[in-house]
Amino acid sequence: MLFSSFHFCLWGLFFFPTGVVEVSVRSPMACWFSAMLYCFGGSVLSSLMLGEPPVAFLAKTINILLASSVWYLVFYCPEDMFYRCFSLMPLRLLVAGMKEVTRTWKITDGIAHANTVYKDAWLVMVAVGWARGAGGGLISNFEQLVRGVWKPETNELLQMSYPVKVTLIGAVLFTLQRRQYLPIAKHNLMFLYTIFLVVFKVKMMLTRDATSPLAPFEAALSQMFFGSQKTPSKVKGEGVTSSNGSSVCDQPSEQHHEGAKKKQAKKTE
Amino acid sequence: MLFSSFHFCLWGLFFFPTGVVEVSVRSPMACWFSAMLYCFGGSVLSSLMLGEPPVAFLAKTINILLASSVWYLVFYCPEDMFYRCFSLMPLRLLVAGMKEVTRTWKITDGIAHANTVYKDAWLVMVAVGWARGAGGGLISNFEQLVRGVWKPETNELLQMSYPVKVTLIGAVLFTLQRRQYLPIAKHNLMFLYTIFLVVFKVKMMLTRDATSPLAPFEAALSQMFFGSQKTPSKVKGEGVTSSNGSSVCDQPSEQHHEGAKKKQAKKTE
Amino acid sequence: MLFSSFHFCLWGLFFFPTGVVEVSVRSPMACWFSAMLYCFGGSVLSSLMLGEPPVAFLAKTINILLASSVWYLVFYCPEDMFYRCFSLMPLRLLVAGMKEVTRTWKITDGIAHANTVYKDAWLVMVAVGWARGAGGGLISNFEQLVRGVWKPETNELLQMSYPVKVTLIGAVLFTLQRRQYLPIAKHNLMFLYTIFLVVFKVKMMLTRDATSPLAPFEAALSQMFFGSQKTPSKVKGEGVTSSNGSSVCDQPSEQHHEGAKKKQAKKTE
Repeated sequence: MLFSSFHFCLWGLFFFPTGVVEVSVRSPMACWFSAMLYCFGGSVLSSLMLGEPPVAFLAKTINILLASSVWYLVFYCPEDMFYRCFSLMPLRLLVAGMKEVTRTWKITDGIAHANTVYKDAWLVMVAVGWARGAGGGLISNFEQLVRGVWKPETNELLQMSYPVKVTLIGAVLFTLQRRQYLPIAKHNLMFLYTIFLVVFKVKMMLTRDATSPLAPFEAALSQMFFGSQKTPSKVKGEGVTSSNGSSVCDQPSEQHHEGAKKKQAKKTE
Repeated sequence: MLFSSFHFCLWGLFFFPTGVVEVSVRSPMACWFSAMLYCFGGSVLSSLMLGEPPVAFLAKTINILLASSVWYLVFYCPEDMFYRCFSLMPLRLLVAGMKEVTRTWKITDGIAHANTVYKDAWLVMVAVGWARGAGGGLISNFEQLVRGVWKPETNELLQMSYPVKVTLIGAVLFTLQRRQYLPIAKHNLMFLYTIFLVVFKVKMMLTRDATSPLAPFEAALSQMFFGSQKTPSKVKGEGVTSSNGSSVCDQPSEQHHEGAKKKQAKKTE
Repeated sequence: MLFSSFHFCLWGLFFFPTGVVEVSVRSPMACWFSAMLYCFGGSVLSSLMLGEPPVAFLAKTINILLASSVWYLVFYCPEDMFYRCFSLMPLRLLVAGMKEVTRTWKITDGIAHANTVYKDAWLVMVAVGWARGAGGGLISNFEQLVRGVWKPETNELLQMSYPVKVTLIGAVLFTLQRRQYLPIAKHNLMFLYTIFLVVFKVKMMLTRDATSPLAPFEAALSQMFFGSQKTPSKVKGEGVTSSNGSSVCDQPSEQHHEGAKKKQAKKTE
């Protein structure tokens, strides 16, 4: 557990968003607090959701000291030696892999904990499992606020990143398994899910390819349930209007768009 | 209870603020979460205020499924059929009336619940009753944030809307009744309050008149307690200064304004 | 306790930030809520942190009524008489002194309370003691939001004010004393700390000198642990570059800066 926390922190800190280095010089306190929110965000968020003390993570003093040491070494080590060591690809891969292992644990821990508070409320289980596993991402707006950055026009619900999406899928799968809707043992599912996470993480790091392996499924589901033509080409197509063959597939989109406008107009009244 | 939840959702969704339709196309997840906050905001806010799990509303799976179905039909139904059906005035009136009935229940539920946590703390009772009844409005800043909209310059405390105001009055009345300062039985007060809500709601919908029936009382109370000259004419009047007869009533305002400036100056030091 | 609450409120209200007077005219409700957050912010924040009802402060009806009376008299008293009375320096000094006394009590109360929830978790004790003592400052972003003001680019963690800093030091000292790492009795430490607070507060008020007495220590610690050259002269020096003798001390700074840029570049990838 302690070991996993170390790796999580390390990883969290290495993939810190832009602008943190300036904050680390301006205000070490805000930088530290932001780093702690990044590392323990899942714990804070799931505690808040279950009405438990969000400072619980501070009670595990040894974890905080460890994470703080990593934070200190990353930002203030002379000559940036620590950062340079861990920037080497093999070490990065090792740390990234270990972090994905801890993600699985976090999700299942969250689900088990939610189940003790609300017996058999599967939506609560999914929500808490997701929050525990992807907390740092979900509260990123507020983590940024600590650093004096505020980007209200974007959040992880509007534009879900790959880790947040895959954690949500994991939370759904583990909840289904616990409710015994999946014909698979828990440890097998954990193994398979972790393998999936690690393989795709390593692949994405090695190929520097940010395209999500979930993209085709998403597009299909989105098309099926929400009838959405999210492709930018469609939007462009609306501007062209001189194409002849596209009338069949354009019509519903136009209609939908018109409907949307009408709806909007009614709602603003 | 289940029935009331359905109507509340329906209503909440029909009076959704501008810009939601674009979000529904861009990110169904953010749209769904925003809709849930709008429908169950009162429950979330009152739970937070009483230190209870704010995810409690997710435990009532059937309510969530119902609300989600309505949400799905409103936003993604082919040809917008669902939305068009419920846009007819008689149906709108029915749904609106039922929603006001549930508002009364929500306020009294909130007060009763607060009373079990803090015995006889009437301020807590008012606050929780208000939060439960008008929750979606009170947390609108954060509901908007989910959709990527951030309007810090306005909130329901700075510019209270009619539903929020009338819920506050209701919370005060029901608290007074429970503390036995009002010589009226609870069910009578509930009946009268609900009639008041429904009548004015229907009147406002039919006449498309947004002026609050509370405006005269507010102006009188505001004048009495806060001595405020909120009228824009007064502000304009300050710019004119060439009028001769207005010196008597302008003087205190000027003085107040000067005092305010002095205060401000001192406070900024 | 009641008396201390009165003084805290009074003080809080007199040092209210700019822009409140306009809000008091526009919306008494938002002004009142903002004032309550300012006065009872410590209680609200520490309750949230420990998973307890943040409305607990409303249960002490007498305190709220007292604070509300002060709030009313400060903002709406005819001719600003109340404000003018308490603007006299001797009265201000008295109130300021009493408020610093209550700060000590708040810190020790917070630490004692945290210790009952998490036995011997010293980080939790420091955090809750700090939050209780300096709550109004720490949640200032959200207190401003109530008034329609949003300044995300600054917060008390990025630019700690003197009261917030000194409360943090107090929280650390009282936690060390309780864990028996300090060879001093509790009442002696409370006495010395309060004397320190009052003396420097009165000195700062009389000399109108905003420089913190902690500045030299901070600079030394910052230099030691974070190796930061926060002085603006250094930043200017980087622009000059024509000086000859400064190469020795400039080099590490340059290097650090370069390292920071490199780090940044890597992190954004």
